Amino acid sequence: MTSDRTPDTGRTGVSRRGLLFGGAVAGLGAAAAVGADALLSRARPGRAPGVASDTAASIHGGHTVDFHGAHQAGITTTPQAHATFVALDLHDGTDRDALRRMMQILTEDAARLTQGEPALADSEPELGAVPARLTVTFGFGPALVARAAGPSAIPEWLRPLPAFTIDRLEPGWSDGDLLLQIASDDAFTVAHATRMLLKDARSFASVRWTQVGFRRAFGAEKPGTTMRNLFGQVDGTANPSPEDQDFDRLVWATDGWLAGGTGFVLRRTHMDLDKWDRLDRSGREQSMGRTLANGAPLTGVHEHDEPDFDAKTNVGFPVIPEFSHIRRARSENADERIFRRAYNYDHAPSGGEISDSGLLFVSFQADVTKQFVPIQRRLDELDLLNEWTTPVGSAVFAIPPGCSGGGYIGETLLG
Amino acid sequence: MTSDRTPDTGRTGVSRRGLLFGGAVAGLGAAAAVGADALLSRARPGRAPGVASDTAASIHGGHTVDFHGAHQAGITTTPQAHATFVALDLHDGTDRDALRRMMQILTEDAARLTQGEPALADSEPELGAVPARLTVTFGFGPALVARAAGPSAIPEWLRPLPAFTIDRLEPGWSDGDLLLQIASDDAFTVAHATRMLLKDARSFASVRWTQVGFRRAFGAEKPGTTMRNLFGQVDGTANPSPEDQDFDRLVWATDGWLAGGTGFVLRRTHMDLDKWDRLDRSGREQSMGRTLANGAPLTGVHEHDEPDFDAKTNVGFPVIPEFSHIRRARSENADERIFRRAYNYDHAPSGGEISDSGLLFVSFQADVTKQFVPIQRRLDELDLLNEWTTPVGSAVFAIPPGCSGGGYIGETLLG
Repeated sequence: MTSDRTPDTGRTGVSRRGLLFGGAVAGLGAAAAVGADALLSRARPGRAPGVASDTAASIHGGHTVDFHGAHQAGITTTPQAHATFVALDLHDGTDRDALRRMMQILTEDAARLTQGEPALADSEPELGAVPARLTVTFGFGPALVARAAGPSAIPEWLRPLPAFTIDRLEPGWSDGDLLLQIASDDAFTVAHATRMLLKDARSFASVRWTQVGFRRAFGAEKPGTTMRNLFGQVDGTANPSPEDQDFDRLVWATDGWLAGGTGFVLRRTHMDLDKWDRLDRSGREQSMGRTLANGAPLTGVHEHDEPDFDAKTNVGFPVIPEFSHIRRARSENADERIFRRAYNYDHAPSGGEISDSGLLFVSFQADVTKQFVPIQRRLDELDLLNEWTTPVGSAVFAIPPGCSGGGYIGETLLG
Repeated sequence: MTSDRTPDTGRTGVSRRGLLFGGAVAGLGAAAAVGADALLSRARPGRAPGVASDTAASIHGGHTVDFHGAHQAGITTTPQAHATFVALDLHDGTDRDALRRMMQILTEDAARLTQGEPALADSEPELGAVPARLTVTFGFGPALVARAAGPSAIPEWLRPLPAFTIDRLEPGWSDGDLLLQIASDDAFTVAHATRMLLKDARSFASVRWTQVGFRRAFGAEKPGTTMRNLFGQVDGTANPSPEDQDFDRLVWATDGWLAGGTGFVLRRTHMDLDKWDRLDRSGREQSMGRTLANGAPLTGVHEHDEPDFDAKTNVGFPVIPEFSHIRRARSENADERIFRRAYNYDHAPSGGEISDSGLLFVSFQADVTKQFVPIQRRLDELDLLNEWTTPVGSAVFAIPPGCSGGGYIGETLLG
């Protein structure tokens, strides 16, 4: 049904998952094999106390992703099944020194939890023993950066996105001073880690919003299968892969305290599934520019076929319509690209509705203004999908670089 | 850490998961091996179109649970990782004939979706291809039964539970006319199936409440590991197993239209994790009567050791305190037992809190009044855990028996 190529998640996902999930290898053999892959994949079989020793290779709860490194984990990591995004507002008294303490505490506990160890003041230490590829990724809003190092330290692009005509933004889903992205293949692990980290942060900041997302379960589909969104569309085919030559240039910032970090955009996008239901299959495929069956462009057969935007129908119309999403999202400028890592959401409906669903659109890019905004502007001007989708939340954060074992996230800003 | 015995989930879970997840067998071999186990386990490798043929045995998205049978699926089924419980209120005009049509439509689509086939009017047919052990279990509230067959058809126990002093019930989490329990190892599958079934039901009923729960991910832990709740307690050790000699007597009703069905109780129980954090480890173990490390009774070493309620400390106090949960939950009467199938919940916190978490306590029993109520009454009178837990929702439903391929759920009441 879908190709073996995995531009959505990074090709490393195939080898890693193949290794760890297939059950053919275990113990030192697997560790060594994965080690060769570690620069990109950051994954290895679990070190979780009491888990790694007595479980088969097919039990994935002990799998861990390295916390330390040049970049934070949770960006190029093959997306886990569950992610919770939490934005916090800093308390008035949280000054530069307090920010440093907060990030030191959060870093220590995030590092421990991701390796299957309890947080330092873990009230339920047994719950930390199943990391299931837990990653914790921190992001800073403009107010945090200003408190830490003055307004001049704020990257030009670290501010609310320009207003788009399609936006119906709610403050309760937008902005914030500190971001936590907490992701794991186990929803229980996400819940426990979120609580432990919010306990650490409560003296410094309070929760502004929490957004909970999911993708397919670990092992439910063939590794490398591109995600479908709740419209049924194959979503993410054209995403750059961490193996691509220009990936580093597109994603990693190179200047100042943010060098090795990146920019983060979260657009909470409501999807009107009831209205979508009234559109026929052909209309749905035209709006996207891809088939529903396997995500192939309307000019192709396989998902990863390159779209032919010049192809015309018998009567002279473009096969991939002018208003289609893939045509509008595509730029002539190779720098106007982003790295997506989206999750679905599905809330309990209210007031006679039967669903409240959508996409937590997440993208990483070195410069939000230069890379994300032009794409969004084109989609704002014309994109048939706008008929069924509405951005209801929007947030931009700077993701600091990673740190080594003795350091902490944010040290390049706060150290 | 934990025993190989699986009274929580049924021993069949071990063999089934071992077979399907270990990756050692596939195709016809697995089908035959599992077939021998099917009476209890109801599971077999997937028939999902386009999935079963090209995936390895270790990919679990194609796994299916039989929909048809003497009992509905989703009761003795080893609990899936995700479950959504939806209660609906019938529209005023939904009479006996309409109820029959509704249940015929719902049965048809539930049967299809659980087997990896699209619903009849599926608007996103590709989303149904990953059942991941999807089960759909229907329950009837007293008003539905009365409309279908008059008040005399309502079982004596099918009514709101008696008021308990610990209750702080909210109508928005309680009662209802029709229950859907939709469970799968894949959260995306639960979301899609829920939406398809609510579309079927919308002409007949509207959503009263939706409650979303999770357990550990499929394959994250060794099969048969007893669930921990968000307090970190091993929760469910003493649960009867479908293999137990008296399981059928405890769970399945034998009279009238409900023969082969059962009684369902859902207690939404808020857990005050912040208050729990202030209790030391010894206090936590005393409140439960079991250790936190592995769930062993305070008089034992291993999780499944039989508690010794007569054992005394050096100074003459009971080792398992009088107020402990396991002592209060236990009855001298072997008929006062229930079959639990609980899920955890974790919602976005509001108003300065850092969590809104708890347990969707779910139990199945042939007679709610005789089996569930005496236990709950004892816990209401005295149970140290009441200090940290508060029931905020309560619902009782009658779960009709299963049906065969030509039939529909509820036919014994509506046929």
